[in-house]
Amino acid sequence: MSIDNLIKKVVEKKSHAVVGLDTDFNVIFPIVDEIFKGKGNDYKSFTKSELIENALFEYNKGLIDATVDLVPGVKIQIAFYERYGLAGLSAYSKTAKYAKENGLYVIGDIKRGDIGSTSEAYAEGHLGAVDNFDTTYVQDDFKVDSITVNPYLGEDSVSPFLNALKVNNGSMFVLARTSNKYSGLIQNVVNKENGEFVYEKVAKWLQELGKDFVGESGYSSIGAVVGATQVSEMVKIRELMPNAYFLIPGYGAQGGKAEDLASGFNADGLGGVVNSSRGIIYAWQKDGTKDYMQSAKNAVLAMNSDINSVLKSFGKAAF
Amino acid sequence: MSIDNLIKKVVEKKSHAVVGLDTDFNVIFPIVDEIFKGKGNDYKSFTKSELIENALFEYNKGLIDATVDLVPGVKIQIAFYERYGLAGLSAYSKTAKYAKENGLYVIGDIKRGDIGSTSEAYAEGHLGAVDNFDTTYVQDDFKVDSITVNPYLGEDSVSPFLNALKVNNGSMFVLARTSNKYSGLIQNVVNKENGEFVYEKVAKWLQELGKDFVGESGYSSIGAVVGATQVSEMVKIRELMPNAYFLIPGYGAQGGKAEDLASGFNADGLGGVVNSSRGIIYAWQKDGTKDYMQSAKNAVLAMNSDINSVLKSFGKAAF
Repeated sequence: MSIDNLIKKVVEKKSHAVVGLDTDFNVIFPIVDEIFKGKGNDYKSFTKSELIENALFEYNKGLIDATVDLVPGVKIQIAFYERYGLAGLSAYSKTAKYAKENGLYVIGDIKRGDIGSTSEAYAEGHLGAVDNFDTTYVQDDFKVDSITVNPYLGEDSVSPFLNALKVNNGSMFVLARTSNKYSGLIQNVVNKENGEFVYEKVAKWLQELGKDFVGESGYSSIGAVVGATQVSEMVKIRELMPNAYFLIPGYGAQGGKAEDLASGFNADGLGGVVNSSRGIIYAWQKDGTKDYMQSAKNAVLAMNSDINSVLKSFGKAAF
Repeated sequence: MSIDNLIKKVVEKKSHAVVGLDTDFNVIFPIVDEIFKGKGNDYKSFTKSELIENALFEYNKGLIDATVDLVPGVKIQIAFYERYGLAGLSAYSKTAKYAKENGLYVIGDIKRGDIGSTSEAYAEGHLGAVDNFDTTYVQDDFKVDSITVNPYLGEDSVSPFLNALKVNNGSMFVLARTSNKYSGLIQNVVNKENGEFVYEKVAKWLQELGKDFVGESGYSSIGAVVGATQVSEMVKIRELMPNAYFLIPGYGAQGGKAEDLASGFNADGLGGVVNSSRGIIYAWQKDGTKDYMQSAKNAVLAMNSDINSVLKSFGKAAF
């Protein structure tokens, strides 16, 4: 099962962190000379879209090179690439391939979900073929190990992803409780039928779905997105989904602390990967340097140390 | 307001239909000779991705040419292009531009939604700049008149789209009640607080949001997606959102009938656009012909006639 591959990398790297490559061209533009350092001055004659594509990719390549030995994987937020049209998505594709080639587990943070036949198209684009037969024209530009999925359209919107996971040995993280301020609008509606929050209903349903996807590790390839900013909810979702892997956003820049997210982990010291984006990829801003690679590396070392020591103090150390 | 532009085209074309360009390469491949008819044999030397890109675009171009005088707009389901990576999305971009050039209102069916800073990136990619200043590097590959949005992440996930609508004079349709079989998982949870369904809560919230976006037509540029397969819900949502425009999927292939969707319209004969995809773009299969353009045209004429006569019989004729 694909989740076993992620866990193997977690143990090998002794890290529960994933680097969130939410790269924003406007933020990195001031250090464009640093990004293309050692690559000549060709970039000065680039068209606008060539500059965007190459700057996003080279910057990400630098981040990957700097942190590849320290983390099990990366999470790439596709919105930051889609923003720049085809040039941006070409950088997304190159980044995913480069991370994969370097042995990282690649999570495409795409939050897709639609009616069945449409989810099937998304599944094929981001995970690979949904069946073993009809693969002649499948393109692998956006193919990753794992994706995030939005559950608002219900069961049939998620099934095609399950089929694609089986064929391609992938995993997915379905949104249960997100880390943003007003995430309660729908997620915290209390169900009249049984007094449960919507996010609990989603978690129970995912736990059932996940039973067919449990690997040798004992964990399922059907995971959940659970924000680090919602501690009590994280405790509840862990109870409802004991052997699911959590993708935990919100650490660092969004305010989530290592103490808060410890409740997302199990006694074996496993059960979650924690994403940090701005806190790593823009650490150079806080450090007052253009050496974004070194700053990113330092930020990851600090994050690993923070999370690992907190987990240890909670008696949840896997390594 | 952007919704006024859509309504103007509805009245001009005397049609409430939008053609759903959910073009599937595997379905159109058997008539590839017809698609490239009159364009020489160059396509026979295309690479796989060139063939996909060009076949998707040329097929859509044929559909647009055949129906441009009969409908106010098109809805392009991005998943069917994303499935084929960069080649597919290039076809999406070309299709959107071609439809726009031909005076059609273009709805990008993208169902995006994420935490604030991420939704901002999506908004910029699909609607245009989110503010009036920071536009230097905005790319317009995916820019459309209107998009669909998924509300599961709550209020802050939707606000950046509102900003982008204002700057770019766009519109959006937020998922309230979708047309698929198991859409009730979340959408039909009954709120313990007040006995309301989740989709009703979403509708009320959208109605409030929409007040700032009402155009000269009296309709708001904040609309809702309301499936044609859920009649009683459509009645309720119309009551909750009296001056919202509905994007109504599910007509035809998904089982929605004109009688069912009439409840989505107001007494002025306006208030909704009805999408049909497979029933139009693959009408040639049912007709037993390769002339997909003529079949699509006939299917649209039949759909217009069906919807317009049913609306008339309900006393809701706008023209």
